[in-house]
This record gives sequence, structure tokens and C-alpha cells, in this order.
Amino acid sequence: MPYDNDNIFARILRGELPCNKVYEDEHVLAFHDINPLAPLHILVIPKGAYANTDSFAHDAPPAQQAALMRAIGVIAREQGLADNGYRVIINQGDHGGQEVPHLHAHILGGEKLAAMLVPR
Amino acid sequence: MPYDNDNIFARILRGELPCNKVYEDEHVLAFHDINPLAPLHILVIPKGAYANTDSFAHDAPPAQQAALMRAIGVIAREQGLADNGYRVIINQGDHGGQEVPHLHAHILGGEKLAAMLVPR
Repeated sequence: MPYDNDNIFARILRGELPCNKVYEDEHVLAFHDINPLAPLHILVIPKGAYANTDSFAHDAPPAQQAALMRAIGVIAREQGLADNGYRVIINQGDHGGQEVPHLHAHILGGEKLAAMLVPR
Repeated sequence: MPYDNDNIFARILRGELPCNKVYEDEHVLAFHDINPLAPLHILVIPKGAYANTDSFAHDAPPAQQAALMRAIGVIAREQGLADNGYRVIINQGDHGGQEVPHLHAHILGGEKLAAMLVPR
């Protein structure tokens, strides 16, 4: 799947659309999800044209891969989620339920979350 | 929370317990979950004493943080999940539903997964 430069997160990264920003560094931008599924629901996205986990894992520079992982922990701690806990979810493609074709890690917290999947 | 050296994943890393290994490199080990929640359910764990995302994000070397992200993509592609998609989940603490106190990323795929959380 080629990267779509007009996806909503690409437009946020270019400043064409607003976001409620919670964190930014050289490699990563994070903001509140506009349709939260938990009391706190933050999206962490890498800067650059990465459609999904597959392209990010294979093509991104290691420093940016590390930065995404580090940012998730830093943001969660800053938002007061570290002690009680939280969930990180990255969806890829149809089976994963990915809705925007730019890699985004969900951070969900602020209450005890439901089971991650119902056992089969 | 101090790291518990007797947790099941620490024992797998030390070779004291078996696992159905799918991937290993300098930084990471991956194996099939013994209680799969999807047709394919793989756990990816960092080598080292990391109880959760918080400690891994703050304390692990960047090369290992990058390696975890990279391994997720490499494993998913090797297992044939890249095209149809998959979900990556990391649970931390009580609110996240973390069950083993060693950081583990779930890779879930092989069918269209249920919604990641029911909207509130």
C-alpha cells in the first residue's frame, strides 16, 4: 500500500489540521484522540511517511524506532498513567482495524480497561 | 514495582522453561502464546529485566528499544500477517490487564479482530 499524503495524520503533521498536542520531539508527535475510547486516549505518531507498523519497522531509522517506544513511556508517565497502568495498541490493516493509513500507537488509560480480546 | 526474577518470561529467557520460539536476536525473544486469543498470537519480549513499558521506555538502551519495534514488524511479515493486517498490544499494570510482570508485546492476527475497545 503506497503512503497516502492526504491522510488526516499527514495533514496534522504538516500543520494543515489542528490537534490537541501532548508531546512532540524530533521523531514523534502525540495528541488526544478526538473520539476517545477511554478517559485518556492519546495517539503517538512518527514523523515521516510510514503507513503502518510494517513499513516503520522495516524502513524507519533505528533512532526513530527507539524514539517512538521511548515517547510512549514518557507520555504515559507525564499523563499520570504509569502507576495504575495503561494499554498500548497499534492496529495494522484490515484484520487489525487500522482506520488511518499512517502508523499510530494508541495509549489508553484512566480506568481499568476491558479484556484486550475475548478468548476464542 | 521491582522486577521479579522468577516471573515466567524471565525463566523462559534463562532457558528454565520451554517456549515455542519464532524469533530471536541479541535484544529480543519471541514465541507463541500458550493461550492464543487469535489464530496467530505471538509474544515478543525484550531480553533484560524490564517489568513493563515504563521501565523499558525509560531505562533500555535505544538500540534495544529500536530492536523491539523492528522485531514486531519482521516477525509479523515472516508469519504472513503483513498484508491482511494484525494488532500489536502492550498491557501495563492493573488498568492495562498486564498478567506477567515482564514487558511483552502481543502480536495478534490470522483473522479480522474484534474492536480494540467498545466505545464508551
